[in-house]
Amino acid sequence: MLIRLLGTGNAAQIPVFGCSCRVCARARVDERYRRRPSSAEIVTSTGRYLLDAGRTDLAEWLDPSVLRGVILTHYHMDHVEGLFQLRWGPLPAIPVYGPPDENGADDLFTHPGCFDFSHQLLPYVPTTISEELTVIPLPLRHSRLCFGYVLRGRRESIAYLSDCDGVGPQSLEQLRREAPKAVIVDCTYPPDAGRNHFSLDRALAFAEHVGAPRVYLTHIGHQLEQYLLEAPLPLDGPVSVACDGMTLTVD
Amino acid sequence: MLIRLLGTGNAAQIPVFGCSCRVCARARVDERYRRRPSSAEIVTSTGRYLLDAGRTDLAEWLDPSVLRGVILTHYHMDHVEGLFQLRWGPLPAIPVYGPPDENGADDLFTHPGCFDFSHQLLPYVPTTISEELTVIPLPLRHSRLCFGYVLRGRRESIAYLSDCDGVGPQSLEQLRREAPKAVIVDCTYPPDAGRNHFSLDRALAFAEHVGAPRVYLTHIGHQLEQYLLEAPLPLDGPVSVACDGMTLTVD
Repeated sequence: MLIRLLGTGNAAQIPVFGCSCRVCARARVDERYRRRPSSAEIVTSTGRYLLDAGRTDLAEWLDPSVLRGVILTHYHMDHVEGLFQLRWGPLPAIPVYGPPDENGADDLFTHPGCFDFSHQLLPYVPTTISEELTVIPLPLRHSRLCFGYVLRGRRESIAYLSDCDGVGPQSLEQLRREAPKAVIVDCTYPPDAGRNHFSLDRALAFAEHVGAPRVYLTHIGHQLEQYLLEAPLPLDGPVSVACDGMTLTVD
Repeated sequence: MLIRLLGTGNAAQIPVFGCSCRVCARARVDERYRRRPSSAEIVTSTGRYLLDAGRTDLAEWLDPSVLRGVILTHYHMDHVEGLFQLRWGPLPAIPVYGPPDENGADDLFTHPGCFDFSHQLLPYVPTTISEELTVIPLPLRHSRLCFGYVLRGRRESIAYLSDCDGVGPQSLEQLRREAPKAVIVDCTYPPDAGRNHFSLDRALAFAEHVGAPRVYLTHIGHQLEQYLLEAPLPLDGPVSVACDGMTLTVD
C-alpha cells in the first residue's frame, strides 16, 4: 500500500493568493514548492482512496474507475471542497468514511450525488476499508469534530493527524499502542503562534512525546515556511517537513 | 468595458467527472469544448470584476492588483467555490456585491478573509459599481435567492441571467425597458427536462418574449450539449450557445 501526499498546505495553500513573500513568490515559479490543501491518496492493489478531498483539480486527473472511496478527517472546506464538482458524476455510489458530523459542508449532505456519506466512523474503533487497509479514527483537538487516522496495512501502520492542535490522552494511548512507523502531523504555524493547529514548538513537543521513528509535518502555512528558511529542521533528526507528492509505503 | 465569459457550464461542468458520453469525451481531449462553472470577468479601464466565482483555479491566473470586486448572482457552491481559497489573501478588503442571502455558503460569512460581503444589493435598484459600470439586480426564479443583472455601461447594456427557470413580470418589464444589446441566459437542459433552470424550449420561448437582438445560452449541461449535436440551433438566428472565453463589448 502507498500513501501519496496530494497536498501539504493549509487552507490558504502556498502560494497564498496576492502574497508576495519569498515563500509564495518562489512557489509561484517553481512547482516543487507549492503546497496544495492537505490530503493524500491511498493506493492499494484493488483501488484507490482519497484521504480528504480539498484539491479542486481532482476531476482533471483522478481515474473514477479505480476510486474505491473517500476518507475524510473533517468537514472544513479545505478538506472537502473537491467533492462539490465530483459528486455529479454518473457513477455507482462511492462510500465516504468520516466523522459523524451532522452538518457536513454546505449542501453536500442534501445533494450528495454519487457519494454515500452514511459510512460514519466511530472514535477508536478499527474499521476495515479493504483487505489491505484498516483505519482507526483518533479524535483530535480542533475547532470542528475531526479525526486523525491510524492507517494500518497488513504488517505496518502510519498515522495521519491533520488538523489538530493537540491529541487527547485516549487518542495518544492508542497511537502509542499502534506504534506507527511514521506520523504525519499538522504543523501550520511558526513557534508560539496560531490556534486550532499545531505551531512548530507544539508539533515538535508532540513528536517527541509520541516517539515515532519518523514524523512528517504537514498543513504548512506560508509563515511557518518563511520561518523554516531561516531556521531549518536538522537533517539528521526524526522530524521532517513533508512536501506535495511525498510517498510512503505501508506493508 | 468587456464581458469575458470564464465559464458556461452547469455545476457538473463539462466534462462531467466519470462520464464518457460523446460530449464529455470530446471536452476531455479538446479544451475548446470544456465548460467551466458559469461566470464572467468584467474588464473596465480601472480594474476587473468577477461576476460569480465558481472557478477554483482563479488563484492561478487572476491578478489581485486589478481585482476591484466580485458580483455574485447567488450563493450556490458552483458560483462561489473559488472564493474559499482566495479569501486568505493578505489584501485590502475586496467588495462583494450580491443578493441579501443570510446564509451565504458554508463558512464564507463567518470567515470572510479579504472579502467584504456587506455590499448587499436591492432588487431593481441601479447600483453604480464604477464610473463605467452600473448593475441592476433582477430577481430570478431559482431554488435560491438569485439575481440576474443588467450590466450597464456608458451607452449600452447587456443582461446576465444565470441561474433561472423563469423571470417574473417586474424583472421582465425592467429588462425590456433597459433594452440590452444582448442577453446571456441560463439554459441547462434539453427540451422539456429539468427544473430550477431553463430547458431549451423554455429558454427559447423566453428569448422570443424578451426580444433582445442577441441571446447567448449559458450554464449548459452535458445532456443539452448532446441534444445540440443532433439538433443544432440555426446559425442565422438571434440565439446562440455561448462558450468559455466568449467576449462581448459594452460601450
